[in-house]
Amino acid sequence: MKQGCIFCNIAHGIMESVTLFENLEFRVILDKFPAAKGHVLILPKEHIEDIYELDAETAGKIFALATIVAKAMREVLACEGLNVLQNNGEVAGQTVHHFHLHLIPRFEQDHINISWPIQELSDDDLETIGQAISKQI
Amino acid sequence: MKQGCIFCNIAHGIMESVTLFENLEFRVILDKFPAAKGHVLILPKEHIEDIYELDAETAGKIFALATIVAKAMREVLACEGLNVLQNNGEVAGQTVHHFHLHLIPRFEQDHINISWPIQELSDDDLETIGQAISKQI
Repeated sequence: MKQGCIFCNIAHGIMESVTLFENLEFRVILDKFPAAKGHVLILPKEHIEDIYELDAETAGKIFALATIVAKAMREVLACEGLNVLQNNGEVAGQTVHHFHLHLIPRFEQDHINISWPIQELSDDDLETIGQAISKQI
Repeated sequence: MKQGCIFCNIAHGIMESVTLFENLEFRVILDKFPAAKGHVLILPKEHIEDIYELDAETAGKIFALATIVAKAMREVLACEGLNVLQNNGEVAGQTVHHFHLHLIPRFEQDHINISWPIQELSDDDLETIGQAISKQI
């Protein structure tokens, strides 16, 4: 646990939350400041700041759990769509620096905005970036 | 493979793409219509429409792979942040109905918008929704 981390406190049950599921490694809660009714967060209990600190095994368990929670959300909320979102860094919208996966139910005419203008990149640019990243994987 | 599915064609190498990584189950490519330079997509080769069709094991492998790709992206792109995004249903922004995980590098003053007004929900509402979903998990 990291001193003063709100999600550490919630994940370990020190601060209250509406908990949907809990096991040794994770707590699944309703977001107190939701984008929509039924907005869910999956929190690891261990203090992991972001995706760069997340090991592959824990990552795998989180997304496996997300598929189960997503199905339960669709069943109960009858949502028409669902976004899975995970933000890293303030510039990406991460407000709490404890890894969390958002599951956001979507409905027609909700006020959630996830959009971007498409960037024009030449084939050469794509090839150069592609080669550079692939060498690091 | 699903007839006429563009991501099936790309995943199986029938249509060209800038490929960063490939194994028996997945292909990792650069998005041809990127939100930012270095916008990556992870595609399963199997035609899986969305998170509801995704089994927990495959989900786990995708997110494990995402942690590795995210680190490579940060190294090469020197991005200040990163969004992991996966859309299900048209209302959620899913344009191709073949499961794909977006890894979007973020920079100050880019034009990517991921935002929502916070919904006001009473504690009673949260409790009721929470109980209903937790019963399905």
